[in-house]
Amino acid sequence: MSAADAKVLSTGPLPDNEARWIKLIKINYQDANGTPRTWESAERSTRPANTDIDGVGIVAILDKPSGKEIILQKQYRPPIGMVTVEVPAGLVDAGESAEQAAVRELREETGYVGVPTETSPVMYNDPGFCNTNLRMVHMSVDMSLAENQNPKPQLEDDEFIEVFTVRLADLWDECKKLEGQGCAIDARVGTLAEGILLAKKLAL
Amino acid sequence: MSAADAKVLSTGPLPDNEARWIKLIKINYQDANGTPRTWESAERSTRPANTDIDGVGIVAILDKPSGKEIILQKQYRPPIGMVTVEVPAGLVDAGESAEQAAVRELREETGYVGVPTETSPVMYNDPGFCNTNLRMVHMSVDMSLAENQNPKPQLEDDEFIEVFTVRLADLWDECKKLEGQGCAIDARVGTLAEGILLAKKLAL
Repeated sequence: MSAADAKVLSTGPLPDNEARWIKLIKINYQDANGTPRTWESAERSTRPANTDIDGVGIVAILDKPSGKEIILQKQYRPPIGMVTVEVPAGLVDAGESAEQAAVRELREETGYVGVPTETSPVMYNDPGFCNTNLRMVHMSVDMSLAENQNPKPQLEDDEFIEVFTVRLADLWDECKKLEGQGCAIDARVGTLAEGILLAKKLAL
Repeated sequence: MSAADAKVLSTGPLPDNEARWIKLIKINYQDANGTPRTWESAERSTRPANTDIDGVGIVAILDKPSGKEIILQKQYRPPIGMVTVEVPAGLVDAGESAEQAAVRELREETGYVGVPTETSPVMYNDPGFCNTNLRMVHMSVDMSLAENQNPKPQLEDDEFIEVFTVRLADLWDECKKLEGQGCAIDARVGTLAEGILLAKKLAL
């Protein structure tokens, strides 16, 4: 049993009155000239009140003798029908800060215990298409702690997540290799790799 | 007249039979255990046949005496009701490669002429929610060329895009500053900044 054993059986239109998790929105707006226009958008139905984000992504860094490594995971994503390489991530619960959600999700999905070190601005995944967003929380994982020696994820029955780590310095090449093996690359992983590549190549 | 002059007037549900650009999809799949499950997804209706991507994002680098700069743009995005800081980007036309779309979009949106130097794997914007994706194309902009001395965008009547540049080494701090000024940060810009920050901080 692995993430790759999942597969799409069939797809079809989802009538909006049956949709429970997502919805389509029609927006009437005026453009910079004052001209009235419309736009179509998709939204999650699940964002709690009193928060400005849907979820968090987690850049969890392990400090190993062989270099810094990032925790990644593979899971099957029905919207694209592929196993995706992602950072640990999850939706925020009501009343939770981005950092609290990150500590909880990292523990649930990977078993690792980490400490937040940096939080990104609110970032929008695809703002011409939808309103979904997240904050990225950087976390330091102390590999000398007892609880990080043999981390055990706490997954729901319907979650199948394979945790692995990659040397941060190799992340771009690893993304290309993983794509070659049939995985889909989440934009957070790929764009983080791009930033590292650019910084190294241009000696920023 | 600036991007910030636009505003949302009203929003409401969009019945799926009126939606022209986006749609909701119901997916029947089996998970890694073979258990049948369903998932809700949003899709663009516009992806051309014979391509694996909706669009491209462009990391266009100007080599200036004061350091490398990246071309960014501000535009109003109705799905979030804010002016967003994004990389130049656009949907691919039928028959176009990622690199061809990048050269065309960079010229249309910013006026700059650039040469592709690197293309990312296909990256998925939010694969738990939708199937939208893109490739990032890195482009080098030769500032000694005549056409790059006084670049003039070629925008549609309903496009209001403000082009500016930021020193790549300062991108993380600039994202935080722009958010403080009321702008929304697109995930591509913010995550690229994260990668640069990490590479510098961890000396990768």
